Amino acid sequence: MKPDTTFTQINGGITAPIGFRAAAVSCGIKVDALDLALIVSDNPASAAAMFTTNKTVAAPVVVCREHLKNSGGIARAIAVNSGCANACTGEPGLTNAQMMSQVLASEIHCPTEQTLVASTGVIGLPLEVSKIESGIITAAKNLDRHSNQEAAKAIMTTDPWPKETAVQVNTPAGSFTIGGMVKGSGMIEPMMATMLAFLTTDALIDSLQLRRALSSVTDETFNSISVDGECSTNDSVFLLANGSSGISVSDAIYPFFVDGLRQVCSKLAKDIVRGGEGATKLVSIRVTGANTGHDARRAARAIANSLLVKTALHGADPNWGRFIAVAGRAGVTFEPSRALVRIGSVVLYENETAWPEREAEASQHMNGDEVDVVIDLGTMGDEEATVWTCDLSAEYIRINADYRT
Amino acid sequence: MKPDTTFTQINGGITAPIGFRAAAVSCGIKVDALDLALIVSDNPASAAAMFTTNKTVAAPVVVCREHLKNSGGIARAIAVNSGCANACTGEPGLTNAQMMSQVLASEIHCPTEQTLVASTGVIGLPLEVSKIESGIITAAKNLDRHSNQEAAKAIMTTDPWPKETAVQVNTPAGSFTIGGMVKGSGMIEPMMATMLAFLTTDALIDSLQLRRALSSVTDETFNSISVDGECSTNDSVFLLANGSSGISVSDAIYPFFVDGLRQVCSKLAKDIVRGGEGATKLVSIRVTGANTGHDARRAARAIANSLLVKTALHGADPNWGRFIAVAGRAGVTFEPSRALVRIGSVVLYENETAWPEREAEASQHMNGDEVDVVIDLGTMGDEEATVWTCDLSAEYIRINADYRT
Repeated sequence: MKPDTTFTQINGGITAPIGFRAAAVSCGIKVDALDLALIVSDNPASAAAMFTTNKTVAAPVVVCREHLKNSGGIARAIAVNSGCANACTGEPGLTNAQMMSQVLASEIHCPTEQTLVASTGVIGLPLEVSKIESGIITAAKNLDRHSNQEAAKAIMTTDPWPKETAVQVNTPAGSFTIGGMVKGSGMIEPMMATMLAFLTTDALIDSLQLRRALSSVTDETFNSISVDGECSTNDSVFLLANGSSGISVSDAIYPFFVDGLRQVCSKLAKDIVRGGEGATKLVSIRVTGANTGHDARRAARAIANSLLVKTALHGADPNWGRFIAVAGRAGVTFEPSRALVRIGSVVLYENETAWPEREAEASQHMNGDEVDVVIDLGTMGDEEATVWTCDLSAEYIRINADYRT
Repeated sequence: MKPDTTFTQINGGITAPIGFRAAAVSCGIKVDALDLALIVSDNPASAAAMFTTNKTVAAPVVVCREHLKNSGGIARAIAVNSGCANACTGEPGLTNAQMMSQVLASEIHCPTEQTLVASTGVIGLPLEVSKIESGIITAAKNLDRHSNQEAAKAIMTTDPWPKETAVQVNTPAGSFTIGGMVKGSGMIEPMMATMLAFLTTDALIDSLQLRRALSSVTDETFNSISVDGECSTNDSVFLLANGSSGISVSDAIYPFFVDGLRQVCSKLAKDIVRGGEGATKLVSIRVTGANTGHDARRAARAIANSLLVKTALHGADPNWGRFIAVAGRAGVTFEPSRALVRIGSVVLYENETAWPEREAEASQHMNGDEVDVVIDLGTMGDEEATVWTCDLSAEYIRINADYRT
């Protein structure tokens, strides 16, 4: 049963929940830009995380998995750097991630296993760990409840703007807060979050429940977006719950907690797409009339990742034939003779009939910042799925052809 | 055993083999451009064809399948138009494809089931069949052995140039000729040719053998290329063998025939990639060290279709981390710790070690027209596969954002 949750949008991002502080510094990995952020909970927090499904896993992911296991799902602090992914860096990379973790633990005065680390940026570059260490030492002295936005800036790579949000979740048992920040904006694909997300809450919830909530919400949000069909080596979603609000997430309150978490993650996931490399629009691809949920998701992903679809979206060209062609090659049950394509509120194709005279109206909708597309697979099934994607522009090429130069 | 085949590259394209004539006209589907081609064999030829795996199948594909079945694999003539794909056009579209076929049969004086038809261009547009009919009537009067290049022009859509080739195949039993022409250049993906290819030969071979040869060669050539990961509704490869050379493809000669066919198809397949929308380079992605051939092919395709790989290729950026990241998400057995990336002759990454000092040399290789990349998956297996792809440029976006406007 759906709880009647009410939310209040508030400021403060990751430091909006009680008992969380943050800091951001420029430690020299990037040139003259914030490149290191700390998130610290005043007391040990329940911790859950989801990591990339890529078989090439960056060193910080390896360290985090081990720490979460050893700590029994408890964490005090997270350190994140941008500019270097510390991926494909072999044994030295692993040592560097461990050292990053140890310095953090020593500054925060907690066991090393209660620290988490994340890195994002160029793959294969060695992590300049001495810069990171100095940065952590400086940042740890400057933790406060007002550096949330600077922290969101410090984790950016090609992101056009910092992305954060926070909501107060009102429940029958009282209110608690969930905050979060994310970075995109290339290598974004469904099937594991494929970006970095840091979520905090002052609700009181054990780490098993926390993991259950995070896993289900990630599936509908961070796992349902795509910028470029890529899946990175470093993608991670972290969620810390420190209980400082005094509101305990009982079985009765759990649905409210999930609702609040979904609210935060959905906002951040769509913001990643909005801020996708070269993106000019947020596009929702909703596939209906599928035989199975798996088929619906698969078709929606194939369409969301199609170059021809993404370029048509960019050009505001209601070229519905491209949607049908991708649905046909997606490897799902598909009945072309009963398929439908709708852009905005305009049905362009149904029962093998096209209405070219409606294309101008569809194109007008496509010229907006948010585009809604519905593709019905025409099977007898009624399963559906939605994936959020963006258009593909020449700017994406420019960004990615010269990323390192 | 590999035959010691020798080839002589000759002019003439599809009309190089004895007994084939062609014609091209401007019938008015496109504005002031050749848009209709005929290929006619003087006598009934053995015919084989491979069609798209897309579940949305264009009307001409439906008609060709039926004709090949009814004729027992015999064909006299093919009509192809560009500018309109006659796909997603329902019952009227099927009727139009049949009418196109009937007019062709009537002009060539053969049974309708011995004609084949193909269309390429915009999906969903009704085929202006009266223009096609007049065009076929005019073209049938102008068939000759010198219109091969005009025919190759008439089948183009966004192709930057016409693509044709022909070889004389020298065998112990004598020589025969194989010619061909293709059109790309968007919606090109492995798993069925995903473009139109027309092949002719004056070798004498029955349609079952012809189909066997075409199927195996298509797999290594047209099914091993990708421009944009798309698979169209119309993709077809046609091969007509009219026996006019008098050279019979016996069991002893069959390997020579396959060799010759591979020579022609390989050239044409690579030409499609070279002429891919916005492409500036032909890139061979060779995946080695795979556990299975399927894994090798799957990884090679994932890499060949990756936006981050294709943009790095465009920027001549030897960003080997992107190759490793894609191999890691390709869903194949992969051992990052033993993986290798080589660009040209330069090993950039091996045994978790990178050599940044070699990148300048790799970048120099990437600046050329042809780029060779090898990715070893580091498993104990020794299976491998090669896929040909192109880089992704801003020009691709320009072409596809405004295709219909």
